[in-house]
Formats: sequence, C-alpha cells, structure tokens
Amino acid sequence: MKALVYQGERDVAVREVPDARIEEPTDVLIKVTATSICGSDLHMYEGRTDVEPGTVFGHENLGEVVEVGDAVVRIRAGDRVCIPFNIACGFCRNCDRGLTGSCLTVSPGMDGGAYGYTGMGPYRGGQAELLRVPFGDVNCLKLPEDSIERELDYVMLADIWPTGYHATQLAGLEPGDSIVIYGAGPVGLMAAYSATLLGAANVMVVDRLPDRLALVEKIGATPVDDSAADPVEQVMDLTRGAGADRGCECVGWQAHDPDGTEHPNQTMNRLVGSVRATGGIGVVGVFVPEDPGAPDRLAREGQIAFDLGAFFQKSLHMASGQAHVKRYNRQLRDLIAADRARPSFLVSHQLPLNEAPQAYRHFDDRDRGWTKVVLRP
Amino acid sequence: MKALVYQGERDVAVREVPDARIEEPTDVLIKVTATSICGSDLHMYEGRTDVEPGTVFGHENLGEVVEVGDAVVRIRAGDRVCIPFNIACGFCRNCDRGLTGSCLTVSPGMDGGAYGYTGMGPYRGGQAELLRVPFGDVNCLKLPEDSIERELDYVMLADIWPTGYHATQLAGLEPGDSIVIYGAGPVGLMAAYSATLLGAANVMVVDRLPDRLALVEKIGATPVDDSAADPVEQVMDLTRGAGADRGCECVGWQAHDPDGTEHPNQTMNRLVGSVRATGGIGVVGVFVPEDPGAPDRLAREGQIAFDLGAFFQKSLHMASGQAHVKRYNRQLRDLIAADRARPSFLVSHQLPLNEAPQAYRHFDDRDRGWTKVVLRP
Amino acid sequence: MKALVYQGERDVAVREVPDARIEEPTDVLIKVTATSICGSDLHMYEGRTDVEPGTVFGHENLGEVVEVGDAVVRIRAGDRVCIPFNIACGFCRNCDRGLTGSCLTVSPGMDGGAYGYTGMGPYRGGQAELLRVPFGDVNCLKLPEDSIERELDYVMLADIWPTGYHATQLAGLEPGDSIVIYGAGPVGLMAAYSATLLGAANVMVVDRLPDRLALVEKIGATPVDDSAADPVEQVMDLTRGAGADRGCECVGWQAHDPDGTEHPNQTMNRLVGSVRATGGIGVVGVFVPEDPGAPDRLAREGQIAFDLGAFFQKSLHMASGQAHVKRYNRQLRDLIAADRARPSFLVSHQLPLNEAPQAYRHFDDRDRGWTKVVLRP
Amino acid sequence: MKALVYQGERDVAVREVPDARIEEPTDVLIKVTATSICGSDLHMYEGRTDVEPGTVFGHENLGEVVEVGDAVVRIRAGDRVCIPFNIACGFCRNCDRGLTGSCLTVSPGMDGGAYGYTGMGPYRGGQAELLRVPFGDVNCLKLPEDSIERELDYVMLADIWPTGYHATQLAGLEPGDSIVIYGAGPVGLMAAYSATLLGAANVMVVDRLPDRLALVEKIGATPVDDSAADPVEQVMDLTRGAGADRGCECVGWQAHDPDGTEHPNQTMNRLVGSVRATGGIGVVGVFVPEDPGAPDRLAREGQIAFDLGAFFQKSLHMASGQAHVKRYNRQLRDLIAADRARPSFLVSHQLPLNEAPQAYRHFDDRDRGWTKVVLRP
Repeated sequence: MKALVYQGERDVAVREVPDARIEEPTDVLIKVTATSICGSDLHMYEGRTDVEPGTVFGHENLGEVVEVGDAVVRIRAGDRVCIPFNIACGFCRNCDRGLTGSCLTVSPGMDGGAYGYTGMGPYRGGQAELLRVPFGDVNCLKLPEDSIERELDYVMLADIWPTGYHATQLAGLEPGDSIVIYGAGPVGLMAAYSATLLGAANVMVVDRLPDRLALVEKIGATPVDDSAADPVEQVMDLTRGAGADRGCECVGWQAHDPDGTEHPNQTMNRLVGSVRATGGIGVVGVFVPEDPGAPDRLAREGQIAFDLGAFFQKSLHMASGQAHVKRYNRQLRDLIAADRARPSFLVSHQLPLNEAPQAYRHFDDRDRGWTKVVLRP
Repeated sequence: MKALVYQGERDVAVREVPDARIEEPTDVLIKVTATSICGSDLHMYEGRTDVEPGTVFGHENLGEVVEVGDAVVRIRAGDRVCIPFNIACGFCRNCDRGLTGSCLTVSPGMDGGAYGYTGMGPYRGGQAELLRVPFGDVNCLKLPEDSIERELDYVMLADIWPTGYHATQLAGLEPGDSIVIYGAGPVGLMAAYSATLLGAANVMVVDRLPDRLALVEKIGATPVDDSAADPVEQVMDLTRGAGADRGCECVGWQAHDPDGTEHPNQTMNRLVGSVRATGGIGVVGVFVPEDPGAPDRLAREGQIAFDLGAFFQKSLHMASGQAHVKRYNRQLRDLIAADRARPSFLVSHQLPLNEAPQAYRHFDDRDRGWTKVVLRP
Repeated sequence: MKALVYQGERDVAVREVPDARIEEPTDVLIKVTATSICGSDLHMYEGRTDVEPGTVFGHENLGEVVEVGDAVVRIRAGDRVCIPFNIACGFCRNCDRGLTGSCLTVSPGMDGGAYGYTGMGPYRGGQAELLRVPFGDVNCLKLPEDSIERELDYVMLADIWPTGYHATQLAGLEPGDSIVIYGAGPVGLMAAYSATLLGAANVMVVDRLPDRLALVEKIGATPVDDSAADPVEQVMDLTRGAGADRGCECVGWQAHDPDGTEHPNQTMNRLVGSVRATGGIGVVGVFVPEDPGAPDRLAREGQIAFDLGAFFQKSLHMASGQAHVKRYNRQLRDLIAADRARPSFLVSHQLPLNEAPQAYRHFDDRDRGWTKVVLRP
Repeated sequence: MKALVYQGERDVAVREVPDARIEEPTDVLIKVTATSICGSDLHMYEGRTDVEPGTVFGHENLGEVVEVGDAVVRIRAGDRVCIPFNIACGFCRNCDRGLTGSCLTVSPGMDGGAYGYTGMGPYRGGQAELLRVPFGDVNCLKLPEDSIERELDYVMLADIWPTGYHATQLAGLEPGDSIVIYGAGPVGLMAAYSATLLGAANVMVVDRLPDRLALVEKIGATPVDDSAADPVEQVMDLTRGAGADRGCECVGWQAHDPDGTEHPNQTMNRLVGSVRATGGIGVVGVFVPEDPGAPDRLAREGQIAFDLGAFFQKSLHMASGQAHVKRYNRQLRDLIAADRARPSFLVSHQLPLNEAPQAYRHFDDRDRGWTKVVLRP
C-alpha cells in the first residue's frame, strides 16, 4: 500500500510499504478515506524528536472498515468509522475511568499510545491506504450512514476537536464564563469553537498571525493580537480588570516572541496573569520532559520558570495532558449529525495522499492560509 | 484588653491594647477562649514578611459571643463559636460559589482576608481577650452546647484541619486512593488524618523530624523519612512502582534540604515524580509572588523551576491556595460532635496568653514536642 | 403606592397600599421598572391555594435601587438590579451550599421564601411601584449600566430563565445529549432554550398548543405534538429507539389530557418511558404535598401512581424543586450582556401596571399569543 | 461439573451439569473457590420470578483462572480474580461512561447482564465448580497474591459491598453527613459500613430483626427499630428535627409491616419523610416493572403511590439501580488489601457446595444468625 514515510528532517515521501493487516483477534482494518496532518506531526517532521526514519505518520484517521478480527463483535465490515488518535484497551485502570489517553496496556511502560507517533508505541500511522486499529471494538467510533458527505467535519473528531474541547474542560469552563485561549492554531481555534458551543459568554484568543486572528473573529470570538500590546493587559481590559474565568494553553513549549526567540514559560505565566483568582487553566499545548537541543538550561531538563507564587496567591488550578478522545467523540459526533456544529470551517486544503509532502512543507512554513490539511488516500 | 503584639523580628509581647468592639452593624464580638499559634504566624515572627510592629497576631480563634451588631440575626450573645481564619462577606461572586477564601469584599483590591495577618486586610488577630468578627452571621460557626469540654478539638476547625482537608480535596482524593503528603507539620498531619477519615487506602507522609514521623505512624499512616533515602523512590516502592494516586504539598516555599539550604521547587517536583499519570496534586503550602530576601533569582520573583514537561506527559492536575474554611467546617464539626474525629491529638501545649512569647520561641525553633500550641486568654 | 392586589378567586385589582420601605438594616428598596406575571401566579389567581385576599403578587422583579439600609455595603442607590424570586439570607446551611431556594432563615419553619407568594413567607410582591428586598447585598443582582435598553431580557433572570435552566441541570444535561422537555409553557421554552445554549444535540419539546409548538420550532428545537400521537413513541422514533438522554418535567401536577381531565402522574411516567437507561429527569413543574380539591384520592394526599419499577430497572435518577436562582443568574446575565442570549423572545406583551387585571385574565385563559406578560409600573 | 440448579419453587439441588468452558476468544474460565448466596437469589428461589428450571444460580463469584481465550491479554491462568455480578463489554456507550451495570452488549435488547439470573441474559451462574467469564479482560478483578487468606472479604466485592456502597453514592453522601438506611439486610449493612468508612457523621439503620440491629450497632451505626415506633419520627429525633442529609432504600418492593402485609411504597415514602430538604435518596432495593402476583393494582403494574408533592417541596433528588460494580471494586479491594476494611464481618456461614440447598432454606426463612452464606465449591 502507499503511505507517507518519514525519511529525515523535513523529508517525507509517499512510498510503497507492506499492507496493514489484521494481527490480533481484536483488530479492525480500515481503508482510510480522510486523514489530516496535525501540528504535532510537525515536531517529528522538523527533526525535533527521535522519530526513526521509515515511520508512517498520521493519527487523525477516518475510513471504512474492510475486515475485523475474530473477537470483534460491535464493528463490521462496511462500517464507516473515525479513529481516536489515542489507542486504548478499554479495560486497564485508566481506561476504566475514561482516561483513555493514558492507557496502561497499549504501550507497556508508558501511559498511552497513538498511531504513527514516536514514543507512543509501535503503531503505524494512517497517512496511508490502510490502517490497523487495535482493540477495534473499543477504538472505532461509528459514523452515521450519510457521513460520507461530511467527512471533513467527522475527521476533526479524531484529535483536533476533542483536543480543543479537552482544553476547555481541563480549565473547568462553565456556561457564562469568560475564557482566554493562548494560541489560534488548529487546537486553539477548536478550543474557542468549543467554548462558544458550550455557552461561554466571552471567548478571547491570543495570537499574532493575521489569518488566524481573522478566523477567531469569524467564529464569534475576540481576537487579541499579542504583537500589538501585552496580552495580559488586553485581557484585563476586556474583562473590566477582573481577569478571565478560565484560560487554555494551546501553544506548547516552543512558544516564542515575534522575533522567534523561544520562551517556554511565556504562555503559562501569561495565563497565570490573565486568569482571575479561583480560576482554572487547561494545558493541551505539548511540553516535554526533556529537550536536549534547547538553548536554555531549564528547557533542556523539561522545566520552566513558573510563577507558582502568583498561581498560589490566586488559588488557581490547572490540568494538563493529551485529550481522552473517547470521552468526547460520541457527543461531538452527535452535534455534527444534528447539524449544530461544523468544525470543518478549519480545513483549508483537501489533497490526495501523494501531495502530502508539499502539504507538510506549506504547513510547516505556516504559509498563509494553510490552516489545516486533510489528505484523501 | 491584653493581646499578643508583634514588636519586631522574633520579638512578640503581651500588652494592653484598646478593646475590640462592635464597629459595623453586621459585627459580632467574642471573648476568645482558645486561639492557636499557626505555622504561618512564624513567617511574620521571623521577619520574613512586611508585617508592621504593633500588629496583633492570631487567626485560629474560638470563643463565646458577648455582643452582636444590630443587623445580626443568626448569632446571639452566649453562643459558643469557632471563627474561620478567612473573613468572608457571604455575597460576593466568590463567596456565592463557596470560595470564601477569596472573598472580594473584605480586603478591597485583594482576594481574601484574615485576622491578624499582613497583606490580608485591616483585621486585628485573636491572640487577645476579645475579637471583632466582621459579617458575624456569615463567619461564626456555632458549636454544640457541650463544646467547652472539647475546645481543643473544635479550635482545630478555624484553620489547620480545614487546611489539611482542603489539600486532600484539591488533590482530588477519593476513597481507596493512595496519597503522599509532603510535610508532617500540623497541616500535613491534618491532611493525613483527613485522608484516613475519607477512606484512603494508603497514606504516606514525607518528613525527616523523628517526632513528626512518630505522629504519622500514630495516626495509622506510613512515615517516609526523606533524610534516609530519595522519597520519590520510597513512594514508588510503597506503591509497587505505580506512584501515588494523589499528592499534597504541605511545606511551602521554604522547603530545604537537611543542611538547611532552601530549594523552593523541591517538593513540587518531588510530587510530580511521586504521583502516577492522571493523578492530582493539592498545594496548600504557601508560595509567595515575591521574596526579596531569597538567595535565588527565580525565588526572588516568586518563580520555581518546575517540571512542567513531566507534569504534562503524566496528564497531571494541580490546585492550590488557602482553604475555603466554610466549605468544610460544619461537616468537620459534626464529626467531632459525633465522636468520630479527635483532631486535638495534634495539640502538644495549652498555655495562658501571657506565656505566648515563650511558645512562639519554642515553636519557631521546632523544639522537639512543640507540635501545636493553644493559648487560653 | 400602587400595587396589584388579590381580592378573591380570579379577582385582582390595582389599588393603593402603604409604601414598601426599609425595615431592616440589611434591606434594599427598589423602584420596580419591570415585573412579569408567572404561571405560578395563576395557581393563586385561580383560587387553587390558600392565599389571603390583600396579598400583593409578583416575584419576577427588576428595578432601580432608591434606598439601602445601614448594613448594606455592596448595593447603592441608583444601581439597576434584578431580584431572584427566592429570598435568601446568604449564611444558613443551605445558602452556604448555594441552595438559596431552600433558605432556612427567611421563612422560619419552612425551606425557602419568595415575594408575594402564599406559603413562602411574609414578603410582599413586586407587581407594585416599590419593593423591599431583604438581605439586599445577597439578593440583588447588579445589571450593566446599559441594561435599561434590554430590561425585557434581564427581567427573565428573576425566575423563568433560571427555572428552565435549572430543569436541564437537575436532569444532568451535558453537551451532545438529547433531551425531551414536557411542557412548552414559559418554563419549558426556557428549558429548551437553555439546552440549546448548552450544546444539546437534540432538543424535543412536548405540548399540544399550536402557538407554543411554533415557538419551539422557532428556537431550533423539535416540537412533539402529544395530541397527535403518543409522545413516548414519538421520542423513541426521534432517537432511533434509544430514548432521550435527559428529560424535564415543566408541567406540574395539573397535567391533563386534551379533554381537560387531570392526570397528575402523566408527565412523570411519560418521562420514565421517554428517557433511556442511566438517564436523568429534572422536575421543576410544581407538585404539591396536598391538594384538597383534587378529584383523585392519591392526588388529594400529594401522591402520584409512579412507575418506580421501570425507573429502577432503567437505573434512572431524578431531581426536583424550585431553582436556586443565584446559582445561575450571574452567568446568564453575562450571556445577555455579551449578546449571546435573548430570552425576551418569550415576551408577548408589555403593559402598564394598571392593565395587570386584564393581563391576568388573558394569561389564565391561555389566550392565543399571551405567552408572557411584563408589567411596567 | 457440580452446580446448584433451580428445580422449582423453593427447590434447588446440587447436580452434575456440563462443564463451563471457553466459548469466545475473549472468555476467561475460572475454578470457583468462593461464591455467596445473595438476597436477590431468593426472589428466584421463592418462585417470584419466571426463572426456568435448570438454571444455575450464583452471581457473587471468586476463583482462580484456569484458562483464557485467544484474545485475552491482561488475565492469565493462575490469577486469582473476583468477578462483578454485572457482565460488561467495556466498549458500549454505557460501559464507556463507567455504567457497566447497564451494558448494552451482553444482553441484546436489555440494559445489563448478570450470571445465573433470570432476565439478565444467557449466562450460567457460579454456584458451581467452574464459571465462564465473558469479556474476561474487562470483567476480572485481579486480587493480591495473598488473597487466598482473605477470600471471605474479597468475595464481598462481587456484589454486596459495591451495591451497599452504590446506595451511598446514589444518595450523594459526603463526609460529615448524616444518613439513614432503610433495611439492615446484607446490602443495608454494607451501605452503613461504607458510610462509616466514607466519613459520615451519623449513620442510622432502620430494621426490626434483633440480630440485624445488633450488627448495626456492632459496626458503630445507630439502630432504629421500626417495630417500636415510627422510624421517621425516630430519625427526626436523632437529627434534632432536621432530618437526615441522605437516605438509602435497601429493602425493595417487598417491604412489609411487622404482620407481613406488603406495602411497596412504604420505605420510599418514609425516606421522603426522613430526609431533609435538598437531600438525596439512593435506591438499590429492587423494584420491578410488573409483579403479576401482587395483591395491589398499582403493584401489579410496577407502580407505587409516591409522595411526589413532598419530594418536590423538599427539593429532593433520588437515583436508582443496580451497582456498576467496576466503578468501585478496585478501590474497595485496595481497602481490604491495606487492612482498612473487613467486610467479611457480614459472613455468618461458610459451607461446601453440596450443603447449598440447606443454606438456601435457612437464608430464605431469615433464620436467626443466617446473615450471609459463602459456598466453597
């Protein structure tokens, strides 16, 4: 089958690889019909991780079931399904509690697993023609029969929408709250979109790229340009000096100022400054336990200089980590099916699989207008 | 009236001061019969804060009502009451949600107020014969008629027990959980005691002072001596390599190694190491937004070098701040009244008010056996 | 001052009564500028209760503060405020927990109090020129300065919107859920409107009056006409046989079939039939502990023949009671202020106070188009 | 293998039946070493259900794994495991949310399944030498290696302890609460025991059998004898007129007065009377959707005459249904392992399998001292 393969720093290619196939009796095999490129794929693409050449990328996958293992009872060939990026067993201590992003089974010795991602287990990605889905009964989200017409919406359920949504839940968002989201990339935009759907009164999104800020405005949120003025002060002004009830970190450790210098603690400390006393912060932007290439001693060891004194004085809380996609994907699917949500507003490009290398290049360069790419194998 | 007055670094004296009296129609005036010295009083005593000479200390107060203002309807002269250390209005946006530790009314411009504490509003403390209680209907917890015999238990409701309890709640403790508590001072011991009452399966407490570790054992928890071996490894061993479900920070920014060198990030990062993926951390040890006298640049600015990379990878959450005493004090009172709890096990000394200066000295020196002092004005 | 006074069954008049005034130091006095007629006023109007002649009705009140008592600190003359229908002290055991609808202070011996309502304490209503608000700091919700232009929206915060919202919360509504609401009167419509704002995927509303069903459709919900077919079967069809995740009772004990025969258990048992296993039911329609005039023996004693067997087999839960308005009114106010909600779509008529008697007559007759009346004293 | 087989009303026998065996790749086969008789087995035993002759009873099972299917990855031969009475798939919409008692997969067309129980699917019970456990990775709770010495404690995890615990959770029990439990059979006693472990201040248990009331006292709860005086008044007295914060129904539809007349609504309405306004009620006593043999018309249709008027006026909530055992059994296991809980205090008899028929007779007769029987195949 054809698949997108990592060959080295900023070098990916579509190549022939052995077909994905049923390996365990609980597996499901799908023909991939939509698979998107994620911002976190770029960490690997840029050579910022230890990903091995030959890896097939792709953890935002949707397709049609072509075969199921002997032990599969819920899913059948012909079902159209969307696959959460986290792989879950459904029966470990964490999965039992709905914490499927930290499954203890699928990547022994680690918490959680994913498709086509370094450090997340031996699972091949879905930027390919076929994908093996382990524990298929657990991991396949069935889509409505007419889903084929709205695959661009449904493929957002694999990662990006649940991840943005998770940010708002980690922050403790309640209806009527104000919320500030740092980062208007795909995750930040999905967090803002979720906040709006959940009844937030005031949704502010901080970024500096004009096309992103325009999208913020388009979904009815308030853009905050941090290249124009201190975003903390802007948030204070927008909330009459109170601060936001909630805040989301959707940037991660590679936060940088407009001239490109990285400040891994920048958004976290701005969030501590932006959120009012007793408020909450949700962190879905990625931070890593070590970053050997970082210019800064703290960053190399996975630390940031964190305003814990202010955090404590304000009695704040924060929660972090990858989204437990299965916690949200049924309900979000139902919002799409009921025509109450259209997350595909985010998608800027649909391309065949063999144009994936160009798509990676444009997306990595943050080329204007390349917000989100969906590949169609 | 007589009161304990701060005169300067490590210098307090019992002196005559003007009587406390009703000032507002919502005030209640109490004759103090029990008032304890808190570890946080020592921050002021040691000159580590900007407290003004002349300040009357004391925020852990219990007594008998002697007079009430015209607008008071629930409390009457003769009632025996315990007073939460946080002063709350009962009607601001935070009090409405039960977040009385962050009352927006009592100390304009700040979040929260307290008796006899620098930076917490203009309220005189209760290490004195009389105490004015603002918003008396809101702030007085009525005690049972026979409470006089168990004042040593009930006075723990003013701060120390709710604070320890709050740590477990911020951490998200649920029955059957394992929990590790850093710090076996009064707050840490109360956190451990609370965890036991709440059905924790495994309560571990880290400290190094032998008399504290003995108390840990006495209440049925597991002492962990961090002067003997790495406490994170000990916690891993005690949990078969899994890590604790929950962790509590009951030490604060003056954490130090056995030779006395301060490491403000020590317990936070040990907690990140000790708690298992998806777990929670409650922070009630005090961290300050600035500490001008600190030896370390980060500490001076209220920052710590925090293991956010590991925190994120483990999908941890943490919550912080002073206890909202009113959230807990009714229920904890009822546990004392029903004879299901005896928090006075913590009290090592009862002394008349005029021996307060000596008590401060012993407590500040961590003299063996001076766990908790209750003054009897 | 002028006020609407109950004179006897279906007989109300606007008369001169003594001015409302400050009686307690915690009181606030307001000049009423908008006050609506509630469906529950009709219970008294119809002589179905033991309300005394001379009672001034009106518990949905909004106005401008004209005077405050000596102990009031947050509210000032000139503030524009909306007043929750429940009167709360802010410091009793229930108010402490946010359960202000069950305040233990304001009506000794009962749980909760209200303005102008029989059995809810001695408080005069606000269908009048002036209203005394007890515990004014606790009970006044401040409105934005420009609120005067949107009083029709803001007056919905006194009762009807929080009550509809409460129904969804009692039912346990979560984003993406399906929900069925029995009753498309003002409360049911507000429940449906709230469900939509909160991200419900599928909102079904059962009624039989064409103008109400038209309003259901107008707010984007699905009308279910129970005079056309069994509503339980219709809900099953609309949910592909699964049943709704949540259900709301917004009818109360006077439920009746199309020919007018009362069946007090009708909606409750239809809800048990309509909601899927593990689902939840919120009950805000009024049920009374005794109804001496009822035709049916059970109803006289406040009982219904309830399908507990089916309820248990489906592992359902249900919660009931008057809304704790203060739990919701700040957030809902902020949604109006941010222009994200316009609950005034419900208001069919604005009338001067002296036209109140006619308004009562039309509203009581369920005259077509008389959905909700706001009086302007 | 030998198994206890139902032959007809009050007629069970130990007979040879075909061995249980692995049928699906996800099955686990266990050799049963402890299996208890449950009060709900008596419903079948007494001929009150439509159970078919030939059925093997037993849903409270513990044993050693002897074989696993090809798709099983977590459980291995030799593991000692306790099996929840509910059978769950782990991947349906309800299991995903932890609602494993309402699994949509294991008994198509119904919500939930169980071993050896009529109307709960085709699964043979465990009062036998061998038991087939479907979806073994999901349904087996691993026990510590030294569990063999405490099997009487661990076998309580299959049903009776989680069910009692569930009652307290459905009621919304929080530390410091008062709680009244109707019924001091095994489930009621386990509810009381759980409440004590969870920090309830005041645990009252209503029954009339002296040996049960003695056990209530033994575990530190307050016995309330409803044959001596109105239990609602007794609860009021014990709570100074306030009522209990929470209540549990652990009796079910066969509630009767001391002379044996059934009143299916008796405990529910007593609970409404006993619980204070804003309180909660948990219902785990079984109510059935139809009871053809009942003397009373309502009861035949699965209805009770329920005090909904009082329930509403008090703003109560209630939740019902079978325990989702997997929600609790890990944590409760850990409490046994840590020696913090000893639920085996309930067990009155250990008997070999072939004495099961006598045990059923004694248990069904409520013979003094026959509290709980564990069979040892």
